[in-house]
Amino acid sequence: MSLQREIARQMAVIKRGTFEIISEEELAKKLEKSLTTGNPLKIKLGLDPSAPDIHLGHTVVLHKMRQFQELGHQVIIIIGDFTGRIGDPTGRSETRKQLTEEEVQANAVTYQNQIFKILDPDKTEVVYNSKWLGAMTFQDVVELAAKTTVARILERDDFTRRYHDNQPIGLHEFFYPLMQGYDSVALEADVELGGTDQKFNLLMGRTLQKEYDLEPQIAITMPILEGLDGVQKMSKSLGNYIGIDEAPEEMYGKVMSLADELMVRYFELVTTVPLEELEEIKTSLAQGTVHPRDLKMRLAREIVSLYHGEDAAQHAEGEFKRVFQRRELPSEMPVVTVSPDLLEGGTIWLAKLLVEAGLVNSTSEARRQIVQGAVRIEGEKVTDPTYEVAITDDMVVQVGRRKFAQIRKG
Amino acid sequence: MSLQREIARQMAVIKRGTFEIISEEELAKKLEKSLTTGNPLKIKLGLDPSAPDIHLGHTVVLHKMRQFQELGHQVIIIIGDFTGRIGDPTGRSETRKQLTEEEVQANAVTYQNQIFKILDPDKTEVVYNSKWLGAMTFQDVVELAAKTTVARILERDDFTRRYHDNQPIGLHEFFYPLMQGYDSVALEADVELGGTDQKFNLLMGRTLQKEYDLEPQIAITMPILEGLDGVQKMSKSLGNYIGIDEAPEEMYGKVMSLADELMVRYFELVTTVPLEELEEIKTSLAQGTVHPRDLKMRLAREIVSLYHGEDAAQHAEGEFKRVFQRRELPSEMPVVTVSPDLLEGGTIWLAKLLVEAGLVNSTSEARRQIVQGAVRIEGEKVTDPTYEVAITDDMVVQVGRRKFAQIRKG
Repeated sequence: MSLQREIARQMAVIKRGTFEIISEEELAKKLEKSLTTGNPLKIKLGLDPSAPDIHLGHTVVLHKMRQFQELGHQVIIIIGDFTGRIGDPTGRSETRKQLTEEEVQANAVTYQNQIFKILDPDKTEVVYNSKWLGAMTFQDVVELAAKTTVARILERDDFTRRYHDNQPIGLHEFFYPLMQGYDSVALEADVELGGTDQKFNLLMGRTLQKEYDLEPQIAITMPILEGLDGVQKMSKSLGNYIGIDEAPEEMYGKVMSLADELMVRYFELVTTVPLEELEEIKTSLAQGTVHPRDLKMRLAREIVSLYHGEDAAQHAEGEFKRVFQRRELPSEMPVVTVSPDLLEGGTIWLAKLLVEAGLVNSTSEARRQIVQGAVRIEGEKVTDPTYEVAITDDMVVQVGRRKFAQIRKG
Repeated sequence: MSLQREIARQMAVIKRGTFEIISEEELAKKLEKSLTTGNPLKIKLGLDPSAPDIHLGHTVVLHKMRQFQELGHQVIIIIGDFTGRIGDPTGRSETRKQLTEEEVQANAVTYQNQIFKILDPDKTEVVYNSKWLGAMTFQDVVELAAKTTVARILERDDFTRRYHDNQPIGLHEFFYPLMQGYDSVALEADVELGGTDQKFNLLMGRTLQKEYDLEPQIAITMPILEGLDGVQKMSKSLGNYIGIDEAPEEMYGKVMSLADELMVRYFELVTTVPLEELEEIKTSLAQGTVHPRDLKMRLAREIVSLYHGEDAAQHAEGEFKRVFQRRELPSEMPVVTVSPDLLEGGTIWLAKLLVEAGLVNSTSEARRQIVQGAVRIEGEKVTDPTYEVAITDDMVVQVGRRKFAQIRKG
């Protein structure tokens, strides 16, 4: 294959799903140099060790890292332990809790277990930024700070907003972009990846590299993945997420609840489906030659396989079909024993039963679910919130499409 | 003497000539504690080792330090060698040139020679701030920076102005007030002195001490001394200064050229005349019981004595009287020999002679001085700029009130 064709091939893989590349021209030059010299590019991703629980939204950049790995480049994960150990010394911010050495280490291990579900561990270098940041003196810091201006840092969206709203910005906060940027200097990174919200910090890396007489890195931003609701970004606090440690059935079911419009985006950003197949999928969907539900099942299989293997994915699909498509019961469900002293004349208030069975958190939530028609007893919908149930052994109660319990008398 | 009277006495000495004390109430408390415990207060003054050539303007704070010494307190001079060594790493500013270790040391020695003309060396502690600032790590710096906010630092006049004028402020510049403030933490200073332009930095010291759980220092600002012109601040670049290394006669003459209105201010700020005498001087001047010229001669004597001793002051006064008051010639003056090949028929153009004699820098300056009536030959004014002089041996030529030369034929 000619050099130019190989560059074009790599560019196509790299561009998949990206939001912005600064700049494509420089990237092509770096690829050319890499191919000519045989030296892989250094691809950097920084991870903040304060919240090690990864969901699919976080994997968008990891997938891009994996693609770089498959193209033969060197990926480097930076664990921001220096930043994490410092936290927010003012204690004002909940988001920047100061971590102990042990917490940072523990989080880093959790992180690695998670990221190596996507990345090839043998081709991944993991480094801690305390190695170089921890060795810097006040004089080094002053020299680093001299590479940028106050106005430049205040341009970062969140700083601009807080400054104009008269909300205090601790002076130390100005260091975080400098630290991240300096990581690129220390590593001599060729490419840095991040979400679109990281653009400022990625460009700071470019600026600092130039100041330290290095070739500036390419900044690649990836879109922020929408959550299951298809509107807001995937986030644990919004409850619209799929955690990569979730059970296969749960994960499969959550993917199946995804809005149809997001399918292609998910295929593009959080699966390893090759570029050619991705094109086929887009085409078949646009031309209506495939049923969206079948495609979504493929998406669910792809995602579950990635984290639990193909067998687990097959099994989850089987379960899903049994329960939701054939309206059958799942092959396993929790068995809940109801103590006799909760029963009055052999019956119990349905709302109370749902709480006892752990299917809802409170009787008020139970009432709401009942009224909304989400509750079934032995497959029959019950909509009366005052309903009293006569318990029979192995009776199945169900809330929504995925929560079941089998009831026994105690 | 009772405690309260001693506090009042010290307060009166300390308040002499100050622009602002933040706060007098806290200062009185510190004095009370010091007198009760017998522990002297720690009085801090920071010196920037980048420009070691001291003029009278710089001595205003040194005199205040001396007064504290005389009251029994501990004065501490901080040589800002850490700051000086760092300079301005961007190289953008001429005012913050980066100094080598050797330059800083050499400047520090020069400084000490100069300041000990005012301060008592045995009661003065000299420390270098690299001792603590040089030992700080990036983590320490982040913790220090977290004690203040971006908005707070931007309040400093020069930063505010530059930010609003869109002039770049290097991020490292934000550290200078923090460094100076941290010096107060490291020393546990009770009082810090500075010019009115230092107010922000002195208050930063208070803020940081509170943050580090120390009792905040008292900030005392001294007025900026006007130069000989009585209008602009004394400054080498404006040429309106009296350097403390200048020769006695030069120094005496410069003081005598001072505007009358500034006499009391100079007595107050740059002499060691006791407070009671200062009051007498003010009174006698207000009531017209003393001739301003006589008072100014006293001022000149006081200032020259301080830097060259009483004998030198007496001698300078004698010279001054001879030349300017009795219109006599000075007892010594340079002898200039005029080479015969400069003479045409025994004469020379007066303007050219003045240049040869080193009394002016150029013939155009000579012409101007002649036209203005500043030039005399043997005491006779000459105002014709084309005048040709017939040289006679030991002929005296004069420019202005203080420049003389005795001419000889070569």
